[in-house]
Amino acid sequence: MKNPDTICAIASPRGVGAISIIRISGPESFQIANKLERKEGRSITKRETKLTNIYRGDELVDNSVIIYSPSPNSYTGEDSVEILCHGSIYIQKSIVEAVVELGARVALPGEFSQRAFLNGKMDLLQAEAVAELISANTKAAHKVAMNQMRGGFSHDLKELRAKLIELTALMELELDFSEEDVEFADRKQMNDLLQNIQNEVIRLKDSFSLGNVIKNGIPIAIVGRPNVGKSTLLNTLLNEDRAIVSDIPGTTRDALEDTVVWNGVTFRFIDTAGLRDTSDVIESMGIDVTYKKIEQSDIILYLVDITETDYEEIVAELEEFKKEVDCSEKKFIVLANKIDKLNKTPQHFRELVDLEAIYLSAKRKENIDLLKDRIVESVNYNAETEDTILINARHFDALNSAEKSLSEAKEALMANIPADLILIDIRQVLHYIGSIIGEVSTDDVLDNIFRNFCIGK
Amino acid sequence: MKNPDTICAIASPRGVGAISIIRISGPESFQIANKLERKEGRSITKRETKLTNIYRGDELVDNSVIIYSPSPNSYTGEDSVEILCHGSIYIQKSIVEAVVELGARVALPGEFSQRAFLNGKMDLLQAEAVAELISANTKAAHKVAMNQMRGGFSHDLKELRAKLIELTALMELELDFSEEDVEFADRKQMNDLLQNIQNEVIRLKDSFSLGNVIKNGIPIAIVGRPNVGKSTLLNTLLNEDRAIVSDIPGTTRDALEDTVVWNGVTFRFIDTAGLRDTSDVIESMGIDVTYKKIEQSDIILYLVDITETDYEEIVAELEEFKKEVDCSEKKFIVLANKIDKLNKTPQHFRELVDLEAIYLSAKRKENIDLLKDRIVESVNYNAETEDTILINARHFDALNSAEKSLSEAKEALMANIPADLILIDIRQVLHYIGSIIGEVSTDDVLDNIFRNFCIGK
Repeated sequence: MKNPDTICAIASPRGVGAISIIRISGPESFQIANKLERKEGRSITKRETKLTNIYRGDELVDNSVIIYSPSPNSYTGEDSVEILCHGSIYIQKSIVEAVVELGARVALPGEFSQRAFLNGKMDLLQAEAVAELISANTKAAHKVAMNQMRGGFSHDLKELRAKLIELTALMELELDFSEEDVEFADRKQMNDLLQNIQNEVIRLKDSFSLGNVIKNGIPIAIVGRPNVGKSTLLNTLLNEDRAIVSDIPGTTRDALEDTVVWNGVTFRFIDTAGLRDTSDVIESMGIDVTYKKIEQSDIILYLVDITETDYEEIVAELEEFKKEVDCSEKKFIVLANKIDKLNKTPQHFRELVDLEAIYLSAKRKENIDLLKDRIVESVNYNAETEDTILINARHFDALNSAEKSLSEAKEALMANIPADLILIDIRQVLHYIGSIIGEVSTDDVLDNIFRNFCIGK
Repeated sequence: MKNPDTICAIASPRGVGAISIIRISGPESFQIANKLERKEGRSITKRETKLTNIYRGDELVDNSVIIYSPSPNSYTGEDSVEILCHGSIYIQKSIVEAVVELGARVALPGEFSQRAFLNGKMDLLQAEAVAELISANTKAAHKVAMNQMRGGFSHDLKELRAKLIELTALMELELDFSEEDVEFADRKQMNDLLQNIQNEVIRLKDSFSLGNVIKNGIPIAIVGRPNVGKSTLLNTLLNEDRAIVSDIPGTTRDALEDTVVWNGVTFRFIDTAGLRDTSDVIESMGIDVTYKKIEQSDIILYLVDITETDYEEIVAELEEFKKEVDCSEKKFIVLANKIDKLNKTPQHFRELVDLEAIYLSAKRKENIDLLKDRIVESVNYNAETEDTILINARHFDALNSAEKSLSEAKEALMANIPADLILIDIRQVLHYIGSIIGEVSTDDVLDNIFRNFCIGK
């Protein structure tokens, strides 16, 4: 990294609190912090923590705890300063402004982690794990991110890559002796190694769907005719009044996407506000974004109003829906709502629907636990695994490309074609695996990765 | 303080961020922190900062920075630990839960500061200033709180109190020699001292109205007939769509109280949503809370729609309003709104209204700067003063009581009545002044004070 400047940001969550943290990193940080303290010229050689007055020009801004961390023993690897100040907006703002006035600039999102990566404090996988860790809101998501941050994933990839590099070097040596037709790299050994790597790549790729569920939750769609109680059910499930509930059909027009955590698993309810009823689904088929979202859901709650009398029509609609939306890979649960308004068991309905429906009242919160149990049961994954789980789409894409090149390299090897041609594919494999841990990267790629971090990280 | 337990809280602002702070204080804090780190039995004798793994039982929760601060060199004066963890909700929650599982309890609001006070790390005025500092959102409010936290105010009061105690001691000595009719305490000197204290108390009490403006802002009410553009004006002034703006009269029913900072001064707009028009004001006179709020405002913006033709009626209403609401102490500004809808100057209106109205368009943002200037001009205070400014109602009440006792003591002194009777009043003065700095306090009073702090402080 050549001539980095000095950056500064509020690292604690936005808002007012007892204590906030201002973070400064870069070659000027100690000089700037000394000026904030009005103690110019002091040199810091080891980690130092103390209570001090912080000034902005002549104004006494705060009495804060200041921590000096000299390079390379800091998060970024650069000289860094953390200020633990009183958490008023005024103080946070004044300190950042004072630091900027003294020559720093406000950090971009993820810029501290990006510097940590560029200074070799962590590899790209670990740096990315920091952002995952901060946004993880369940035990499972936290564990995946934590494992990645601790370097388990990196270690696996580095090991595979190191073995591949070793054999590749031998094969490259053959090129220097190309006229003599020698084989330094054992073709059988190379083939086995490529196969091992491919197995691991496939395993990682397969873990992505689990990783996706852990990270983003299991998508659930609530569908049904207008006024059958979709919003009421969602509210009941979310335990709060997040949706506008009204007796007027079609009033649910605001975004309803929201998540709950049940049994350590995140469930994400899909916004079906754009669809007033099941016939809307069918009308808008293939073009409607909401419909596509329903297609992507893992669980469909199909809600019917049990007090309606046209059971045949309801069932016909249900069958039509299942014909249009492929539910073979989904958990499809029929819910007979509004049992609070019925006096007798709706025998007729039971006979018509061949699926086992849950009879409930969203309004009176009757049999909701039954529904929750059914939803939770339908999930079948073991988040307690110690295996590496892929949660990042960038990694998935890179592994996809790596696998393609692996297949081509193996084919080339089988076809017994010259080493220089096989090497083209193998170098591609090395490139893609290297790009995950950041051993191969461009500024564009890096900017893209760190842009999604929060400020101050 | 006998046998305090160990307390724990999130000290950084609520929410997700790069770094959050968990604070632990009390006799068990080091033991608990050692267990979190899985390094039991380690003894800490001086301030220590390091990077460490934090566990909850078997689960690795985070890799955090931990700071051990042994008693008495901590904020509370007790053994204290701060953990700077990754700022996900899951990690924050897990660490607090782990600490509680290891024997601590979640801290009450302000409990850390309360302990700092009880352990003599700061007096009550300084502890209270911490809460003021955190909620201060302008330079002036910040300065007042900062001065108070640094002990300027405490010092003044302590000095006055010390002098009074000295003279009181002499007067108490007289009681021991009461049969000999001696006067150890010079009555003239005592009278001068009481006068000095009273002058200072009056000065402080007088500063309270300024303190109140600095702390809470200057209240402004926008009043006027329905549909004259009150919400639009408020939005324009607040620069955001915070109120529901609609052409239907009476739609403004939500709370509209909001503040802006202009020229370093906070202005607080008063919720007049409960009043649909000026006649409502008059009808609800004396009972309506909103009306009382209008009475408390320092500035009234009286809005009229210049496109209406019944000018005489408008003026009559205006006059009636001014008859009912005493505006003699208020800045009263007439605003002629909707000039964008007029082609000619509303000469007729100018003649009828003897006050200088501002002609503006809230919708088109015309002449809004003129209005802002007029509002800012109407404020006349010097927040740059180095004098102590009172911002706390508790202090105001105590000073009020002190002043009453001072007057009585002075009267008693003048009347030349026996020392033991004069002493009753003087002891009251000492009590009230002592209660401000916390030299005299009860648990109830303390609980009441610290209850209003934020958690973690």
